[in-house]
Amino acid sequence: MTVVRATNIVWHEGNLTREERWKALNCTGATLWFTGLSGSGKSTVASALEQVLVSQGVNSYRLDGDNIRHGLNKNLGFSAEDRAENIRRIGEVAKLFNDGGAITLTSFISPYRSDREEARKLHEADGLRFFEVFVDTPLEVCEERDPKGLYKKARAGEIKGFTGIDDPYEAPENAELVLKTDGKSVDDCVAEVITFLGKVGVLSSVEA
Amino acid sequence: MTVVRATNIVWHEGNLTREERWKALNCTGATLWFTGLSGSGKSTVASALEQVLVSQGVNSYRLDGDNIRHGLNKNLGFSAEDRAENIRRIGEVAKLFNDGGAITLTSFISPYRSDREEARKLHEADGLRFFEVFVDTPLEVCEERDPKGLYKKARAGEIKGFTGIDDPYEAPENAELVLKTDGKSVDDCVAEVITFLGKVGVLSSVEA
Repeated sequence: MTVVRATNIVWHEGNLTREERWKALNCTGATLWFTGLSGSGKSTVASALEQVLVSQGVNSYRLDGDNIRHGLNKNLGFSAEDRAENIRRIGEVAKLFNDGGAITLTSFISPYRSDREEARKLHEADGLRFFEVFVDTPLEVCEERDPKGLYKKARAGEIKGFTGIDDPYEAPENAELVLKTDGKSVDDCVAEVITFLGKVGVLSSVEA
Repeated sequence: MTVVRATNIVWHEGNLTREERWKALNCTGATLWFTGLSGSGKSTVASALEQVLVSQGVNSYRLDGDNIRHGLNKNLGFSAEDRAENIRRIGEVAKLFNDGGAITLTSFISPYRSDREEARKLHEADGLRFFEVFVDTPLEVCEERDPKGLYKKARAGEIKGFTGIDDPYEAPENAELVLKTDGKSVDDCVAEVITFLGKVGVLSSVEA
C-alpha cells in the first residue's frame, strides 16, 4: 500500500509519456523473449530471473503458459493459424508490459522464426527494446530431462506435432543472447542474463 | 535504470508468489473498470488519474482504445461476437497487470452488463480486486460535448449501432464508484477516485 497525497493533484492535458512514466517509476522497460525446446530451461531461468529482479525492487513480469494459455489465449487451439495468433497476442501483451516499464519475460517454445520476428517488429516499431534469448540446450539433453514426460509420449506417437520430434524448431540466427544451460547452474544462467542486461543498459549491475 | 547486484542472486524453487511480488515492489494491484457513454469522461479521468499516481511513484497502467484496438485487438471487428471477445481480452490483460501489482485502469464504453460481469469474475476467481467505476454523465451532456463528432454522425445515420443512440448502454447497478462528472473539474473527479482507493485500502491517501 502506497501513500498518495490526495490533495496534491497535478496533471497536464494529454497522455503521460513513456519517458515521464519510466523516470517517475525509476524503471526501464525491455522484453526478453526466451525461446528454445521443451525442457531447455526457459521457464526455470525466466522464473529465477524474475524472482531475483523483483526481490531487488525491479519490476519484472513473466508471461508463460500458465498465465496465458489458460487465460487470454484459452480460446486458441494448436492449428497453424492458432499457434501464430497465440504468439501474436503474447507479443502484443509483452509490448504493453514493456511500455509500462517492466522487464518483461516471455517463456514459450515459439519455434517459428517468422512469429518471433513479428513480435520483434511490433516492439521496435514503437521504440521498445526486444531481446531474443535463445536457450540453446541440445535436444538429447532436453529429452533426457523430459520433466513432463512429453518427449516419451511424442516418441511413442501419443503426441503429434511435437517440437523437435515431428515438428521443426527454427533456431534463432541472430539472438542477442545465447544461453547454454547444459552443465550450468540456474544461478549461473541468471547471472549471465543480468550481466547482459547491464551491458545493453537496461540494468546497471554492480558487484555485491 | 535500476541497480541490481549481479552477484547477489537468491532464488527459490517455484514461482514468485503475488504476495512476495507486491511486498518487494511496495504495490497493491487493483483493476478500476471505467464504464460509461462515449464522451462521458472515462478516458479524461483515467488519464489524469494515471498521471497523478505515476508521478507519485505508484505503478498504474491504462488500457484504452489507443493501445488495445490498434494492437492486441486489431483483428476484431464490431460484430456482437467480436465486441464480447474485445472485452474478454481486455479483462484478461487487466488481470495480468493487476497481478503484476499495477493499479490498472480500463477505459472502454463496455456497454453490456454481462461482459463487465465476466471481467469481474475473472479477477475475483483469482483473488484480485475489481472495481467498477460508472462514469455517470447524462446522454445530453455527452452529446453536447461530442469531442469526436460521433453523436452528430450517429444522429445523421452515418454511424450505425452507436451506444446511447441506436445501441443500448446497460448502466451498472452495483458499481463500487459512481462518478458524476457534469459540472466538476477533472481534478475533483481524480480526487474522488483517490479517496475511494484509500477507503478500500488500495492506497493510503493523506492530506498534503
